[in-house]
Amino acid sequence: MPDAVDSFPVTERNKLRRKHERGRYDKATVYDILDSAMLCHIAYVIDGQPYCTPTAFWREGDHLYWHGSSASRMVRQQAAGLPVCLTVSHMDAIVLARCGFNHSVNYRSVMAFGTAFKVEDPAEKLKLMDGFIDRFFPGRSKEIRQPTPQEFKATTLVGMVMENASGKIRSLGVHDDEEDYQVPAWTELMPVHTVLGAPVPCERQLPGLARPEGLAGYREGARLDEVFAEAYRKHYGE
Amino acid sequence: MPDAVDSFPVTERNKLRRKHERGRYDKATVYDILDSAMLCHIAYVIDGQPYCTPTAFWREGDHLYWHGSSASRMVRQQAAGLPVCLTVSHMDAIVLARCGFNHSVNYRSVMAFGTAFKVEDPAEKLKLMDGFIDRFFPGRSKEIRQPTPQEFKATTLVGMVMENASGKIRSLGVHDDEEDYQVPAWTELMPVHTVLGAPVPCERQLPGLARPEGLAGYREGARLDEVFAEAYRKHYGE
Repeated sequence: MPDAVDSFPVTERNKLRRKHERGRYDKATVYDILDSAMLCHIAYVIDGQPYCTPTAFWREGDHLYWHGSSASRMVRQQAAGLPVCLTVSHMDAIVLARCGFNHSVNYRSVMAFGTAFKVEDPAEKLKLMDGFIDRFFPGRSKEIRQPTPQEFKATTLVGMVMENASGKIRSLGVHDDEEDYQVPAWTELMPVHTVLGAPVPCERQLPGLARPEGLAGYREGARLDEVFAEAYRKHYGE
Repeated sequence: MPDAVDSFPVTERNKLRRKHERGRYDKATVYDILDSAMLCHIAYVIDGQPYCTPTAFWREGDHLYWHGSSASRMVRQQAAGLPVCLTVSHMDAIVLARCGFNHSVNYRSVMAFGTAFKVEDPAEKLKLMDGFIDRFFPGRSKEIRQPTPQEFKATTLVGMVMENASGKIRSLGVHDDEEDYQVPAWTELMPVHTVLGAPVPCERQLPGLARPEGLAGYREGARLDEVFAEAYRKHYGE
């Protein structure tokens, strides 16, 4: 039954009702969209009020992790076991059209659903904190100073199992209703990319240090989604 | 009392508890972060389950608007008066450090809180739908075909008043604890920009059409946040 293993179950929560041809439930696609990002937005509820908080995250298997100050309200509340929805979006293009209705955006997104928990075991927490660094910058956790006991205590690591998730992809060119191609409105697709600028080395860099191999992908002009996905494969293996 | 007019009230909901030196409650800063974006993430709750949905949005005064299919679950539920949190984030840099704890990201973000409502009045709705196009592409609503009655009906326009909101900005270079500058780990700041690629004109462009002045800012290599903010000023005036 490869489908049950390789895909998320489709339930009321993650089923795409609109534009269902854009839906993706296979883990390969969902994971690829997640692993191409550092920033996610997490929805959660405190006293009936929804919050949408941007934060850095990463994936290990079917778990997603993020962290925060142990004093943070978000982290304290989530760690107590809140249901969460963690969403990642990549905007790939703006697509004009000859009527408002056919204007669109190309994108890749994932909504992942689960229940947040706090990582309590110190050994597991330390390993995961190293994984957070190494997943983006392969090998870096071995190059930097390890956390002090105060830093370790001041940081809460929160995780969730992806109980279910759905990906959504739109990747289309300009499309108009047949009769609208006679409307004299200039129409185009505008690609959108998030890229790296030229790195700015620390002014207090120790003399003689070389830029490590683990940062090689982070070069000026590189697409950040591709760099993150490549770093992920480098750290975890294909 | 310029403060009461020019700033959002600080309440339990929008007060920054951590890193409060990064907080911004003045409308000029909050609006600038919002007007530099097309994509937001909206948190809302259906049957106790939080959802975080990415969507296009825009601002008019202290209102935020977005839209969706009238058949969409999100839009139908929100339109009935759900509390929402609309969040916008710009990632500006990845900042390495000599320990995990001082690794960071530079960003500008806004969390805006309010209650969603459906725009019912047809004249207001049509004006706002034109505004949605023109806010991003000044003058474009006059160049394209107007919505058909079916399109108009199939689209639900949802709005919220920003009851309160908070901005958050981190814009710092590499920073390490003084004793860590001796750690032999290469350290740098990596700027991140979302930019436009070369526009791809529609293959069925009518002959003799020129690219309109309203799209002038959308040129290859331009920073999308700056283009959106410039288009906003062009449409609404400074």
